[in-house]
Amino acid sequence: MTPSPNLEAEGATASLPDLFQRYRPGIAQAMRDELAQDNVGLYDMLRYYMGWVDEQGRPRPAMEGKGLRPTLCLFACEAVGGAAELALPAAVALEFIHNFSLIHDDIQDLDETRHGRKTLWAVWGMPKALVAGNALRIVADQVLHKLVAGGLEHKRALVAVGLLTEAYLEMIEGQYLDLSFEGRHDIGMDDYLEMISRKTGALIRCSLALGAVIGADDPITATAFRDCGAALGYVFQIRDDILGVWGDEETTGKPVGADIRRKKNSYPVVFAMERSKGQDSETLNRIYQTEQVDEPDVASVLEIMERVDVRGHAHESAAAYADVALESLRSVEMSPQARGEIEGLTRFLLVRAR
Amino acid sequence: MTPSPNLEAEGATASLPDLFQRYRPGIAQAMRDELAQDNVGLYDMLRYYMGWVDEQGRPRPAMEGKGLRPTLCLFACEAVGGAAELALPAAVALEFIHNFSLIHDDIQDLDETRHGRKTLWAVWGMPKALVAGNALRIVADQVLHKLVAGGLEHKRALVAVGLLTEAYLEMIEGQYLDLSFEGRHDIGMDDYLEMISRKTGALIRCSLALGAVIGADDPITATAFRDCGAALGYVFQIRDDILGVWGDEETTGKPVGADIRRKKNSYPVVFAMERSKGQDSETLNRIYQTEQVDEPDVASVLEIMERVDVRGHAHESAAAYADVALESLRSVEMSPQARGEIEGLTRFLLVRAR
Repeated sequence: MTPSPNLEAEGATASLPDLFQRYRPGIAQAMRDELAQDNVGLYDMLRYYMGWVDEQGRPRPAMEGKGLRPTLCLFACEAVGGAAELALPAAVALEFIHNFSLIHDDIQDLDETRHGRKTLWAVWGMPKALVAGNALRIVADQVLHKLVAGGLEHKRALVAVGLLTEAYLEMIEGQYLDLSFEGRHDIGMDDYLEMISRKTGALIRCSLALGAVIGADDPITATAFRDCGAALGYVFQIRDDILGVWGDEETTGKPVGADIRRKKNSYPVVFAMERSKGQDSETLNRIYQTEQVDEPDVASVLEIMERVDVRGHAHESAAAYADVALESLRSVEMSPQARGEIEGLTRFLLVRAR
Repeated sequence: MTPSPNLEAEGATASLPDLFQRYRPGIAQAMRDELAQDNVGLYDMLRYYMGWVDEQGRPRPAMEGKGLRPTLCLFACEAVGGAAELALPAAVALEFIHNFSLIHDDIQDLDETRHGRKTLWAVWGMPKALVAGNALRIVADQVLHKLVAGGLEHKRALVAVGLLTEAYLEMIEGQYLDLSFEGRHDIGMDDYLEMISRKTGALIRCSLALGAVIGADDPITATAFRDCGAALGYVFQIRDDILGVWGDEETTGKPVGADIRRKKNSYPVVFAMERSKGQDSETLNRIYQTEQVDEPDVASVLEIMERVDVRGHAHESAAAYADVALESLRSVEMSPQARGEIEGLTRFLLVRAR
């Protein structure tokens, strides 16, 4: 039995929706403005990490990420009738916090490369990289403060600050849960879902909620966007986990199984552990208890995953969350264009190949 | 020539001013309330770091730090006519941020003990310790948010949030400068003073400024307290640097020279490098370029420091900053009791033995 290939046939060719292109120039410029300081060398490190300069501080062709979080934030602001401009400080803060968490993740996992470039600690050593991550985190706070200068009243600015603080703490708690799952073989699907709802979901949820709060003074609408974001968080992470096992094959033709080699407690393995029985269950337990997973082990795990159709189930689960995401916004008044855009973005998250 | 012993004769017996005792119970209780969460294991790590529980989470006789920053904050609030209660969230936030920075410092320096107890990373590993530090940092932000619930108007609460954010970024920049000084022998006194004004001074300055902003709506008064705090930051750090070289001898009778062995770019060595000439200068340069400083080296450095009277000059410099600190508050109206208290606190910082 092969995994359901047609279910995600769009995956390999899914291109970034236009929505991302619309906001990109504004976000990119605002981020550069915020990291333009030259008084302390650590800003060179941050500009390097953002992909704007090389290790010597010389400009290089910029690498642009998707910018999912800032895009969601600006979209929500516009969708509820606000000017995207007004939410720009929040959008930049979200992207910086996301990158801060990656800088510290690289240290925790001792990863020496990300997106084909050396990580901060691999270039400048752990102490400076740790400090640079902390700096980016606090620059995010400073940027968020500009909401007031942009015209948002104090009370709503404080709500925005509170939302980001709350989401950020939840993200950190999720990172802790993820670390505490390492080496355990008894992680159930509920544990896993709770972990990703914090680690990944909190900031995505906050992106839409922040945009809605800044764009309109209506708590019910903000809650709807928040619920939408919570569901999108699952869509994003489950798709990420699918790509973590089968993604390389789709985009580069490389052998599959990256996350299996790393023994990551991601959706596929948690699902396989729960669903497999008898011999398969014993095999999984044996492999996840060994120090080093070898290639025959990876092949065994992939076979077991096929037998319980992990990939099909994962996609169905993500698709169900995608429905919840769009349903959450059903009662919110928005233009047909805006509704089409969030539908397109949701579909993209479900089938994206990178 | 011996170092001027009488200059700081009070040092060994300087006891904590009553001011610290007055606020301690309130601060201690508020800190415990904020870290009472039990949903995620990382709060056990934080309670351990604060000295309230052991590695297994069992209560232990609490270790109480001085609580300098929260004490300064509550003092300033009361001195300008506010209720100390109102500034309690800011006081707790300051102490948490201070401890957050220590948790990450321990990781950066690979220090396995602090105050005679194992550091977080030494017990739980680096990844979890890094995350726990980040969590404490964000709990601080959440606590600060309670200023609004406590009755502070939104605008002033935002000013408070902005002050803490600014101070925090400066502290991080100072940590970066400190790291970038490592291994260099060309650090002048100006570089050193700029570094400590950020690394140590920013948060101490912010402690007094926050208290003043919360206690009274008067920018001129807030600026005076800010200036006082900036000067106190120098007093605190220069005294810390004196203790880093000669402190053990005073309190425990152990051999002096701890910071010399660690080749720390602190006040005594920066001063000695600038002032020593000829043979002494060459000796210092040779020693600070060797991989490992041995005991005869430590003795040589101490002798050179005596010849240029480093200790006397350091104390005089700190004493001058202490004068500036008190002078900054000259124009601020406050009760004779309050003025006596800040004078006592300043004197304590100048001669403290721990």
